[in-house]
Amino acid sequence: MSLDHAAQKPHDRLAAALAVEMDGVNTLIRERMASKHAPRIPEVTAHLVEAGGKRLRPMLTLAAAKLCGYDGPFHVHLAATVEFIHTATLLHDDVVDESEQRRGRPTANLLWDNTSSVLVGDYLFARSFQLMTETGSLDVLRILSNASATIAEGEVLQLTAARDLATTEEIYLQVVRGKTAALFSAAMEVGGVIAGRDAAMIRALYDYGDALGVGFQIVDDLLDYAGTDATGKNIGDDFRERKLTLPVIKAVALADDTERAFWVRTIEKGKQDDGDLETALSILDKHKTLEATKIEAISWTEKAKAALAPLPEHPIKGMLIDLADYVVARVR
Amino acid sequence: MSLDHAAQKPHDRLAAALAVEMDGVNTLIRERMASKHAPRIPEVTAHLVEAGGKRLRPMLTLAAAKLCGYDGPFHVHLAATVEFIHTATLLHDDVVDESEQRRGRPTANLLWDNTSSVLVGDYLFARSFQLMTETGSLDVLRILSNASATIAEGEVLQLTAARDLATTEEIYLQVVRGKTAALFSAAMEVGGVIAGRDAAMIRALYDYGDALGVGFQIVDDLLDYAGTDATGKNIGDDFRERKLTLPVIKAVALADDTERAFWVRTIEKGKQDDGDLETALSILDKHKTLEATKIEAISWTEKAKAALAPLPEHPIKGMLIDLADYVVARVR
Repeated sequence: MSLDHAAQKPHDRLAAALAVEMDGVNTLIRERMASKHAPRIPEVTAHLVEAGGKRLRPMLTLAAAKLCGYDGPFHVHLAATVEFIHTATLLHDDVVDESEQRRGRPTANLLWDNTSSVLVGDYLFARSFQLMTETGSLDVLRILSNASATIAEGEVLQLTAARDLATTEEIYLQVVRGKTAALFSAAMEVGGVIAGRDAAMIRALYDYGDALGVGFQIVDDLLDYAGTDATGKNIGDDFRERKLTLPVIKAVALADDTERAFWVRTIEKGKQDDGDLETALSILDKHKTLEATKIEAISWTEKAKAALAPLPEHPIKGMLIDLADYVVARVR
Repeated sequence: MSLDHAAQKPHDRLAAALAVEMDGVNTLIRERMASKHAPRIPEVTAHLVEAGGKRLRPMLTLAAAKLCGYDGPFHVHLAATVEFIHTATLLHDDVVDESEQRRGRPTANLLWDNTSSVLVGDYLFARSFQLMTETGSLDVLRILSNASATIAEGEVLQLTAARDLATTEEIYLQVVRGKTAALFSAAMEVGGVIAGRDAAMIRALYDYGDALGVGFQIVDDLLDYAGTDATGKNIGDDFRERKLTLPVIKAVALADDTERAFWVRTIEKGKQDDGDLETALSILDKHKTLEATKIEAISWTEKAKAALAPLPEHPIKGMLIDLADYVVARVR
């Protein structure tokens, strides 16, 4: 551990507190991503899994299990499961979005091809269910198969809602729940379930994960317009890909005729010219929707912190509270 | 039931014997392919699920359960599970193969887009695990998650082995086990597991499904060169897509220098001209590899029939034997 805890980011402190368990998770991931017959599988998986992601989701599972006093071996399986589901989703997302970069590196679909990304994603998804089965908990299987269905449903909803200016904040929230919050909440929940905790405590874990996930995704969408180089995001990706996210949905609701025509042309029809991103940013600025989006993100992370109240006092609990604060601290 | 059993195809007789259960499966499939938020999901699924496929795989599960005297409700869940896994695989396969036709109709990736096929496949896969979880059987979850991993592994192996003239019959068999036999064997096995039968009987069900699946796929690959319009296959699809299947693998092994140069040009390099398919067929004819492939298919279906020996006498058992014979009867 570092000598200066206060200066560390909350997920680094969580990682330090859970270092032994996380080593176990990484070992298990490497073991299970192997394939006797198809070396392409570990190649593609390693490219993504070892690209230095923050392992935030498996860390939530380990944190929830530790906070609940679990002392068995299966939180490691569940954390690896969660990371496999996440990785499978990323592989398929990058195909769907035709992405070329992920975590600052070329995507698997670019380095290999779409078909490898689709099939390796399927493999990891199947592997994740093998891992779950080993825990012997049908509750875990129910929670994570439900989450997987919600994730896919959210992605399909995003696909059909994309480029549609009629998308409401309610639909946006459903998409966000699917693409991000469903796995955050399930990751927390299974940590409590495997520890055999009661319904109220499991509900608290779920609520924290859900609100943290929604806040996290809103901030992510905000950084796409308000980020800096330090956040590792390319400003305007969502605009160029014509994705309707909260800052724009709020601006469309407040648009005058000229602005509406601008959104119709750039988002619905996709006819974008030089300078359009700057115009978009100035419209968001005029209606102060970046500020409004930030306030909404904060309300979710506050909700996440409040959800932790029924849980026992524990150093991990403080770190989860700090993690929620840190999610919005990424936005200046 | 028809008045003339002998004239009916074995899978029609199985379908008649299992009509009540199959109605239950179809109802459950329609119920579970629904999505409150994303109507695209049932649209895409219905296109494929209601396209008049033979429902062979779910029928195997129902047949195995009935043969084992199962009288609970969960064979219906398992049959729907198996059909969902199969449908998800087809959706992803058509993306991977860039197919334009499936069961005589345009594919989902053509009617909608690749992204819908990827995401709806993911949704059905998640749904299938929800259905399995409802059966409360961890053995079922283990078997079907293993099968799912084997399927994806086989597809990746096929991808990397494709167009490679060094592909051996052994590799071909591994690919076939993944793409077809893994789900056939698991479909049979879970029918026995849910009925609580002993290891020997479950092994017999597995062996029948495995051998039937291998035989079925070999015949399918054979029909791609030896089929007629009645089989609904376009002759030469595999050749044009440069897939190495058993008839060609056997011919490559026997090729003289001129023939080898032909295979290198057409399959490895993909430089195909008018008349190349005819040349390919004449080479297969010269080495009699279509006959050799048929003999191999028959040896697998004989193995399937032999595997049924330990199972109790039952009308369903006779139908499964006839089904194995029918698989090779498709080839004249």
